[in-house]
Amino acid sequence: MALKTGSGALVPPFLVMDVIAAANAIAATPAAADRRVIRMEVGQPGQGAPAGVRAAVTAAMQTTEPMGYTEALGRADLRARIAAHYADWYDLALPAGRIAVTSGASAGFPLAFLAAFEAGDRIALATPCYPPYLNIMTALGIQPVLLPATAETGFQPTVAMLETMDPPPDGLLIASPANPTGSMLSPDDLASLARYCHANGIRLISDEIYHGLTYGKAAVTAASFSPSAIIINSFSKYFSMTGWRVGWMVVPDDLIRPVECLAQNFFICAPHISQTAAFAAFDCHAELQSRHAGYTRSRALLLDALPRAGFDRLSPADGAFYLYADISGTLQDSADFCRSLLHDQHIAATPGHDFDPARGGDFVRFSYCAAEADIVEAIHRLVDN
Amino acid sequence: MALKTGSGALVPPFLVMDVIAAANAIAATPAAADRRVIRMEVGQPGQGAPAGVRAAVTAAMQTTEPMGYTEALGRADLRARIAAHYADWYDLALPAGRIAVTSGASAGFPLAFLAAFEAGDRIALATPCYPPYLNIMTALGIQPVLLPATAETGFQPTVAMLETMDPPPDGLLIASPANPTGSMLSPDDLASLARYCHANGIRLISDEIYHGLTYGKAAVTAASFSPSAIIINSFSKYFSMTGWRVGWMVVPDDLIRPVECLAQNFFICAPHISQTAAFAAFDCHAELQSRHAGYTRSRALLLDALPRAGFDRLSPADGAFYLYADISGTLQDSADFCRSLLHDQHIAATPGHDFDPARGGDFVRFSYCAAEADIVEAIHRLVDN
Repeated sequence: MALKTGSGALVPPFLVMDVIAAANAIAATPAAADRRVIRMEVGQPGQGAPAGVRAAVTAAMQTTEPMGYTEALGRADLRARIAAHYADWYDLALPAGRIAVTSGASAGFPLAFLAAFEAGDRIALATPCYPPYLNIMTALGIQPVLLPATAETGFQPTVAMLETMDPPPDGLLIASPANPTGSMLSPDDLASLARYCHANGIRLISDEIYHGLTYGKAAVTAASFSPSAIIINSFSKYFSMTGWRVGWMVVPDDLIRPVECLAQNFFICAPHISQTAAFAAFDCHAELQSRHAGYTRSRALLLDALPRAGFDRLSPADGAFYLYADISGTLQDSADFCRSLLHDQHIAATPGHDFDPARGGDFVRFSYCAAEADIVEAIHRLVDN
Repeated sequence: MALKTGSGALVPPFLVMDVIAAANAIAATPAAADRRVIRMEVGQPGQGAPAGVRAAVTAAMQTTEPMGYTEALGRADLRARIAAHYADWYDLALPAGRIAVTSGASAGFPLAFLAAFEAGDRIALATPCYPPYLNIMTALGIQPVLLPATAETGFQPTVAMLETMDPPPDGLLIASPANPTGSMLSPDDLASLARYCHANGIRLISDEIYHGLTYGKAAVTAASFSPSAIIINSFSKYFSMTGWRVGWMVVPDDLIRPVECLAQNFFICAPHISQTAAFAAFDCHAELQSRHAGYTRSRALLLDALPRAGFDRLSPADGAFYLYADISGTLQDSADFCRSLLHDQHIAATPGHDFDPARGGDFVRFSYCAAEADIVEAIHRLVDN
């Protein structure tokens, strides 16, 4: 008797992972020895954890500390350190009890969705967006309601969009800076959205994983404007620790115990060694700022060069390390475009389908967190060929 | 307007975590200086990762390897090493492509449930059982169907139990050795269950995280008897790496791509450093075997002493590091019993409520993976007081 598969079996792949595999395959060919593959498809810093993190991990390995399970919401010292980070960066006093250490931001999303919503609930979010938002919601029986956003609203949702929704959604998910566009909500717009949601019984989830990676504009946290908002953050981007799978949430008072119980059952705890690493990361700002300076230079080079290479409709490059280029008019679907770019120029970029089911064929995401020399080389190939 | 909470907000806590907190609180009192708190409540080895693992992690920190995201199903070398482990331990040839590295067994369960079932599906499992099974299923909208098991069937489910189910369940979840009872299915009984499930369209999930920790009986894997079974395993128990949050699944062919897509979206990947650590753990069998010898001695001491202390109805102690004692007749609920035991004797143990909603008040779980000296001291307090 044939066994069936589950509803989760219909979850689409996170396509960038397949692009990575294709780029790996090309990189392994003899042709790549002559012209290396430039990795502009992947959203992870080219350098790993800062030196202070590595030193802290090495030191932990010399002790007899068994590095066993931590409490489900994380080590007390790390939770306190993260709370202090809100005072440092946002002038916001948060009790450590509202911090939940998670196994990356990835763990924060199902914890937030399960704690605050039930199957059938509707969460609004602007597209283009980070694809796992939609796929996690769908796997959990939650209905994403897509708000197609354009350059006119900085690719962000607006209160006006929410006001026209009938019925109103149960939740709103925002990201600022956003992936794939790099766009940010202004402090006023974020405050308006947060206050509108709080006043209207809409649970706000604010993805703030690209905070620390902004270029001129200040990032503000939704926690400053709403006591009911759930904040998701991560050590992967500014702190450059993707593979360590450690992040955090700021949890509203009414959800602390639900998030704790869910975390006990679904995760037990975030990796202990990664919590040790994360604690040390807060002492590495000098090294991290120098990486930020590198992204700033790469961004400036690309903003100058991409229009000369024909990419003249770019998303706001307020933050993160992405540029989202509108290629409509090239008469090529972005998946074909990216395939050609990888094959012909050995430049890996991500087609927009991942981020926007409806309009992704017209867009390509370029990531600029690779080594600066790679960005320079990519520009050379794009402009001079 | 008040914001609602979600269905996941009803997920019960994993109570052992609360027992741990109570034990921590007592351990911090002056009274604990005179009589230390013996930790028999927690299912994690008293010693951390073996020395070879620590050395491998230290070595990784000296390289320039950025330790970024791995592929969603894990590093290729680790998947191959785990596949080889099935040849080593079970004389079973498995392709590395069927191995999925996960963020602990904890991640394996939602991946399995989402890949193989949909909301409303029914999964049968014997009680007493590991509490997150039920809580994860419930949070995902899957209906656990409890099969109350007793000492007569070794606290394990039987084909006869399945045959009486009308309608038959969509899945069966087994654990051998089991938590909290330590009981094991015989190879014949496991084979019968696996073959019955495969023949009758019931998806079998076999939790094998306590393999390697058996005392005389051989552990066999359900993968030897069924191509459709999902195997969940972990580096937490035999390999002594609880806090590292790394485990694996053996995935049936039809679920490999669904599990990969779900893992991409829900986890991105297991922690890279923990995958490095896990790879090294396979070279640490000498140290791990000496720990096993310690558990063997502690188990023998307890099997001799507990009946003298009045615990004369114990579950089979075939494997894992647990004894599940029937205390019915003491006229005390096990939660009260454990509270008194912690307060009066400074011995932490886990009441059965976590493992068996219906009958847990009659049972206490003793874990014997603490230091041997602690087990000796606990016996002294239990028998001589």
